Amino acid sequence: MKQSLLFTKTSKDTPKDEVSKNAILLMRAGFVHKEMAGVYSYLPLGHRVIQNIKKIVAEEMEAIGSVELLMSSLQEKVVWEKTNRWDDEQVDIWFKSKLQNGTEIGFGWSHEEPITAMVAKHLSSYKDLPILVHQFQNKLRNEVRAKSGVMRGREFIMKDMYSYAANEKDHMDFYEAATQAYTKVFTRLGLGDITYVTSASGGVFTNKFSHEFQTLCEAGEDTIYVHDSKKLAINEEVFTDETLSALGEVRESFNPRTAAEVGNIFTFGTDKTEVFGARFKNTDGVEEYAYLGSYGIGISRVMGVIAEVCSDDKGIIWPESVAPFQVHILSLGSDTEATELYTEMKKAGIDVLFDDRDIGAGSKLADADLIGIPYRVIVSKKAFDAGGYEVKKRIDSQSHVLNKDTLMSILISKKYD
Amino acid sequence: MKQSLLFTKTSKDTPKDEVSKNAILLMRAGFVHKEMAGVYSYLPLGHRVIQNIKKIVAEEMEAIGSVELLMSSLQEKVVWEKTNRWDDEQVDIWFKSKLQNGTEIGFGWSHEEPITAMVAKHLSSYKDLPILVHQFQNKLRNEVRAKSGVMRGREFIMKDMYSYAANEKDHMDFYEAATQAYTKVFTRLGLGDITYVTSASGGVFTNKFSHEFQTLCEAGEDTIYVHDSKKLAINEEVFTDETLSALGEVRESFNPRTAAEVGNIFTFGTDKTEVFGARFKNTDGVEEYAYLGSYGIGISRVMGVIAEVCSDDKGIIWPESVAPFQVHILSLGSDTEATELYTEMKKAGIDVLFDDRDIGAGSKLADADLIGIPYRVIVSKKAFDAGGYEVKKRIDSQSHVLNKDTLMSILISKKYD
Repeated sequence: MKQSLLFTKTSKDTPKDEVSKNAILLMRAGFVHKEMAGVYSYLPLGHRVIQNIKKIVAEEMEAIGSVELLMSSLQEKVVWEKTNRWDDEQVDIWFKSKLQNGTEIGFGWSHEEPITAMVAKHLSSYKDLPILVHQFQNKLRNEVRAKSGVMRGREFIMKDMYSYAANEKDHMDFYEAATQAYTKVFTRLGLGDITYVTSASGGVFTNKFSHEFQTLCEAGEDTIYVHDSKKLAINEEVFTDETLSALGEVRESFNPRTAAEVGNIFTFGTDKTEVFGARFKNTDGVEEYAYLGSYGIGISRVMGVIAEVCSDDKGIIWPESVAPFQVHILSLGSDTEATELYTEMKKAGIDVLFDDRDIGAGSKLADADLIGIPYRVIVSKKAFDAGGYEVKKRIDSQSHVLNKDTLMSILISKKYD
Repeated sequence: MKQSLLFTKTSKDTPKDEVSKNAILLMRAGFVHKEMAGVYSYLPLGHRVIQNIKKIVAEEMEAIGSVELLMSSLQEKVVWEKTNRWDDEQVDIWFKSKLQNGTEIGFGWSHEEPITAMVAKHLSSYKDLPILVHQFQNKLRNEVRAKSGVMRGREFIMKDMYSYAANEKDHMDFYEAATQAYTKVFTRLGLGDITYVTSASGGVFTNKFSHEFQTLCEAGEDTIYVHDSKKLAINEEVFTDETLSALGEVRESFNPRTAAEVGNIFTFGTDKTEVFGARFKNTDGVEEYAYLGSYGIGISRVMGVIAEVCSDDKGIIWPESVAPFQVHILSLGSDTEATELYTEMKKAGIDVLFDDRDIGAGSKLADADLIGIPYRVIVSKKAFDAGGYEVKKRIDSQSHVLNKDTLMSILISKKYD
C-alpha cells in the first residue's frame, strides 16, 4: 500500500490525557484513535494488526475442531437473571439500556449465558456432542477506570470459545487441547518466551479450576510467581503452601513478576448447563447435562501487550507474524526506482508499505521506526552507488546494502540474518 | 466440513413469534438464532454467508482505493450534539447508557459524525486528500418495531464507507466510482438483475442528492417506480413531475414495485466537515472544507433479501458467490465411499459440507434442500450402479449421474449446465 493512502499521521507529541505506554505508542504511530477513555477505534494500520492476530487465533482454534459463529451484542435480561448475573451487585461492569417498549436489555460483556441458552435448544442426544465453537466479538464493559490503553478498554475485541462435552473425560480433553492451542498461539504471536500458563484458581484437585496465560509486562495488572529455571508460574491468589506442596515445589524457588493476562481457560463443569437445560440423552437414554469449558483470548489486549513489550524509545517493533506490513520502502529522492521496487514486491506477493510522501528524509526515517514494520528498505542514490538497497531489520541496529535479487529472495523466503 | 461438527439442527416447524419469511427460513435451516425481536446471532452456516458477502464487498471497495478501519461502537455525546443528532427528537433510534461516572454515551447507529471528527484531526493539507475508508460494523438501532427478520434488525452488520475530497469534481468522481463498485457488488451477489439504482432524494440538480440501491423483494419496505424496458427506477418520494421531466420520461412508463433498500449513497457536501473542522490548506495556502460522501451496504440485510428472493417452498437457494459451501455430499448408506469423495474434494480446495450424520435418507434430502447449498452430491449404491454419483444443482429439478473425474472437473472449473 502507498503510505499516502493511509491518511493517518504520526505524531511526536504524547497525546494528552493518555498515561499508558501502549496507547501512547499506538496513537502516535497512527494505529488507533482514542474516542474517549478506554474506547479506541482501529485505524487502517491497527486494523491490519488486529486482523493478523485474529487470523493466527482462528487457525489454531479451527485446528482443534472449533467452528466460528457470531453472537449478538444485545442481550436479554431474562437469560442473565437465571445465573444471578444481571444484578449490578454481582456484575458491576454492565452497560444497560431499554427498548422503546421499556424492556431492559444489556450489552454483551461476556457470552457464556446466551451461548449456553442457545446450545440448549440444539442439544438432545449424545450424538450432538461434542460441540466446540468460537467467535471474535466486540465486548462492552463499563469499567470504572480505564487507564491501561487498549489493554483494558471499555470496548475491546475478544476471542471466546466454548466447549460442550458429554462427560468429564471428553471435557478434560478439550481443556488440554485448548491449552496446547493457546500455547501455539502465543508462540506464533512472538510472545512465547515471556508467556506462562498459570494456575489461577481452584488448584489442581478441584472440579472448577481455571488457568491463565500471563505475559510478563510492566504494564500488567497481575503479579505472578515465576520459577525461573523451569517454565512454571503461579498466580498470586493461589501462591499458597497447598499449591506449592501439590506441585512439589518450595516458595523460595519463585520470584514475583508483573504480568498481563492475555488468555484464560475455565471449566464450569455442569453448573451453567444445568441452569439452561443443556442436556442430552446418553447411550442408555438417560438425560445428562453437558460439561462446559470457556476459553478467552483478548485480541485487542494482545496488540497492546505487544506494543508494550516489543518497543524501544523510537517506537514499536512488530513481530513479523502480526506486523501491519512486512516491508517498508522509503524513497529518499529516488521515487522512480522506489516505485519500481514497490511494484515488483507487490507482484511477488510481499506485504509492503511504500512511503511515497513528499516529506523530508528525517521524517520518513523517524516514522518508519515509530510504525515498526520488520524490514525497512531505503531506496536512494547513496545506496545505489553502494550496490543496491539499504536494508535494515527494525530489531537490528545495523543496515546492509543488498542487490535486488538477494533482497527479494530474503523477503520471499524470510531468511535474513 | 463434516455436518456433525455444525451442532445446529434444522427444523420443520415455523418458529413462533416470527413473521418474516427470511428469518423463518434462516432459523429453520440453522443459519441464525433469534436472541430477541430484531436481534439475531449468526450460527456457523450464517456466519459463513456473512463472511462471503463481506469478502465481495471488501474486494470491490478496495478496488476503488478504499482502506479498511474499524470505529468503536461506544460514542461520545458531545460529537453528536454538534450536528444536533444526539437529541432523541431528531434521532429516535438511539441506544444510550451511562459510564459509571454518570457521563452519557451512545451506541453507534451510524458513524458519519465520529469518523468526520477523527478525520479532522488528521487533515491539514490538500496533500492529505482524497481519503476513502470503509468498515464492517455492528450497528445498534432501537427500532420501535422489528418484524422484518434480519432485513431490519435492532443489531445488524453494515459496510459503511466515507470519502473526503478536496473539491466537488473529485467528490463526484468518488460518488460515481462508488456507484459502479456497488453495481458490481450486487451483480456478484446474484442480485444484479433485480437491483436498481434509484434517485432517492434531492433530484439531480441539487447539491445534497442521494441514491439508493433497491432490490425487488415482496418483503421490502419501499415502493419504487420501475421503467420495465429501461433499467431505470425512481423512489416513491421523488416520483414527481419534476423528476420525470428532468429524466425526459413520462409517468405512464413506470410501474410501482415493492423493493428493499440494500445500499445507499449520500453526498453531504461540506455540511458535516464544516461542523467538525475537517479542513485543509489548498495549493494557495487557503483553508477549505473537504467534501464528504457516505456509502452504505446492509450486509446482514443482503443475507435476508437473498433468503427472501432466492428460495422456494423447500428452502433457500444460495447463489454460488455467497453460499456457505459449494457442495453438499450426502451419504445414503455409502459412508466409506462418501468419506473418500469428501477427502478428495477437500484436497482439491472445494468448499464442501459432508452430511455424515446417522439419520435417514429422507431427512438428509430435506435438510439439503432447506440449507440450499448449490451442488448436492448423493453417494449411494444406486448411484454407483448407475456409474458414479448423483449430482443435482439446488436450482435445478433434474439430477445427473456423473463419474468422479467429470464431477471433480465440473466443480473445480464451476462449469456445469
